[in-house]
Amino acid sequence: MTKIAVLGAGSWGTTFAKVMADAAVLSGHDSAIVLWARRPEVAAEITESHTNTTYLGEIRLPESITATSDLAEAVRDAEVIVLAVPAQSLRSHLEVVRENMQASAVLVSLIKGLERRTDLRMSEVIAAELDIAAERIVVVSGPNLAMEIAREQPTASVVACADEATAERVAALCNNQYFRPYTNTDVTGVEIAGIVKNVIALAVGICDGQQLGDNSKASVITRGLAETTRLATVLGGRLETFSGLAGLGDLVATCASPLSRNRSAGRLLGEGLSAEEATAKLSQTAEGMKSGSAVVELARQHDIEMPICEAVVAVLDGKLPVDRLASLLLARDLKAEGS
Amino acid sequence: MTKIAVLGAGSWGTTFAKVMADAAVLSGHDSAIVLWARRPEVAAEITESHTNTTYLGEIRLPESITATSDLAEAVRDAEVIVLAVPAQSLRSHLEVVRENMQASAVLVSLIKGLERRTDLRMSEVIAAELDIAAERIVVVSGPNLAMEIAREQPTASVVACADEATAERVAALCNNQYFRPYTNTDVTGVEIAGIVKNVIALAVGICDGQQLGDNSKASVITRGLAETTRLATVLGGRLETFSGLAGLGDLVATCASPLSRNRSAGRLLGEGLSAEEATAKLSQTAEGMKSGSAVVELARQHDIEMPICEAVVAVLDGKLPVDRLASLLLARDLKAEGS
Repeated sequence: MTKIAVLGAGSWGTTFAKVMADAAVLSGHDSAIVLWARRPEVAAEITESHTNTTYLGEIRLPESITATSDLAEAVRDAEVIVLAVPAQSLRSHLEVVRENMQASAVLVSLIKGLERRTDLRMSEVIAAELDIAAERIVVVSGPNLAMEIAREQPTASVVACADEATAERVAALCNNQYFRPYTNTDVTGVEIAGIVKNVIALAVGICDGQQLGDNSKASVITRGLAETTRLATVLGGRLETFSGLAGLGDLVATCASPLSRNRSAGRLLGEGLSAEEATAKLSQTAEGMKSGSAVVELARQHDIEMPICEAVVAVLDGKLPVDRLASLLLARDLKAEGS
Repeated sequence: MTKIAVLGAGSWGTTFAKVMADAAVLSGHDSAIVLWARRPEVAAEITESHTNTTYLGEIRLPESITATSDLAEAVRDAEVIVLAVPAQSLRSHLEVVRENMQASAVLVSLIKGLERRTDLRMSEVIAAELDIAAERIVVVSGPNLAMEIAREQPTASVVACADEATAERVAALCNNQYFRPYTNTDVTGVEIAGIVKNVIALAVGICDGQQLGDNSKASVITRGLAETTRLATVLGGRLETFSGLAGLGDLVATCASPLSRNRSAGRLLGEGLSAEEATAKLSQTAEGMKSGSAVVELARQHDIEMPICEAVVAVLDGKLPVDRLASLLLARDLKAEGS
């Protein structure tokens, strides 16, 4: 019996618990999946009614999933610990994890974002806070809109770890008839792709708000992925990751979906709202609005041109009129595509 | 004064003539653009009313564009000859071109497709039929839905030629405030991308018809681009081309657009219609339905796995029930992403 803990009962954490429970049935593997929810009433609902209506409506969860609001209890004896809490609160949760985790546990991050102040990626926060080797830190990322997966609509995803065997082990734990994991050893590339994606999604949303067409949006997606790749390559990421599911796949799903928060925020910016007005209207700050300036700063440190991210940040800062963004992106000197 | 001939007054040929006319105004270059239309009444309308209502509705064309239905006259003395005729009739048009063209003319193909029977790419047909060197054959491809460009919505594109200087020359002739060319020397990759794209668009349309979500479609786009890249690489194409505008960009624009003929045909297949029924309903055969089996055959010759194209062809041939396509695509053994 393998105990797996999933920390965070939002839409993605809950859905991923279901993915693993369904994978266990399919493979005949005996897994106990414990979901940690911050709020006791959510934990009780999951255990007793097998639903999480706040995030997943009427979706029925497998009965093999139980939930608790006791973080230490969730983590204790777990061989695999999946992290699905907000990026900015990861470090504080890891303190409790460290004190209660089994010495050999594998950590799996579903989180996209950079820690503010330190600008560290999630895998770096995990390594630092738990003092464990890269061989035990896994990142899962891909075209993974949670609600669609909860409805068992087929998708593929990337399971990345510096150690191929660990990646394969986690891939086997989440492989089922509607969720198809591919392994990858490029953790840095997978994480950077997930972070910059939200900034590019803002740019695509701005094009929407400006009523530009599918060519314009496809150009922004393509050139946006190219500049993301340039940044990630100097940070040690690999080219192929960006044409794969965690790069291209995630970006295309996010930019196609009307459900994407970043694209919605971009649309409001494109219609002429300020960053504050867009945030007020959506009742929350889109992730790309938080990470945009950190991405641009990182690019400048490494002398990488990222014209799309720079233009988005200039719009957010009120320094670039939004109706000049599209033509600005096209206004550079003629050059070869790869350069 | 540079004379440029554009052969084919459909939506893309006419739009590209406008792109070059607007580029000439912007650069101050003196160009005469002559559009060849098969039907005299279309040529007369373009020259006299500056519209092509059959293909571009009320879009107003620059007055510097004139049109003729005399192919020899259009080609005579032209320094650049742009080809925008149907793939299957290219060779017959080239006979007239050969007899009337200036010895040093550059040929630019806007055509996507393989010649039936020979399975040759358009640049290969041009080279064979006109007996000219690769240095004078250019291919333009990218996220280029004609109607959006005719409305001057910004986009980017790829101008590919084995000779960088020729690519730059053609790029300068079409660079304007809404059309941004990038040069590339990978003609093979650019052409293969444009051909296989239509088959992948059918697969995405099938997902639509099956009411699958954005994750599924993004997974098909990503894995579809990966298999296209595998094929093109053995044929001499380059990896970067596929993450660029002619690969990713064109694929994303086609798969996002409700205007795409291939995606529409796929949607009908996904709803359970046979290939014949879908063709009858659309009053024409989608390009991907013609080229699908040639692509799969080419892949088999080179021992390349192309599961998405193979599944699409099996659906077209009535050998695979359409509701099994998605799960089939996810049913392969666990493996690393790049392999």
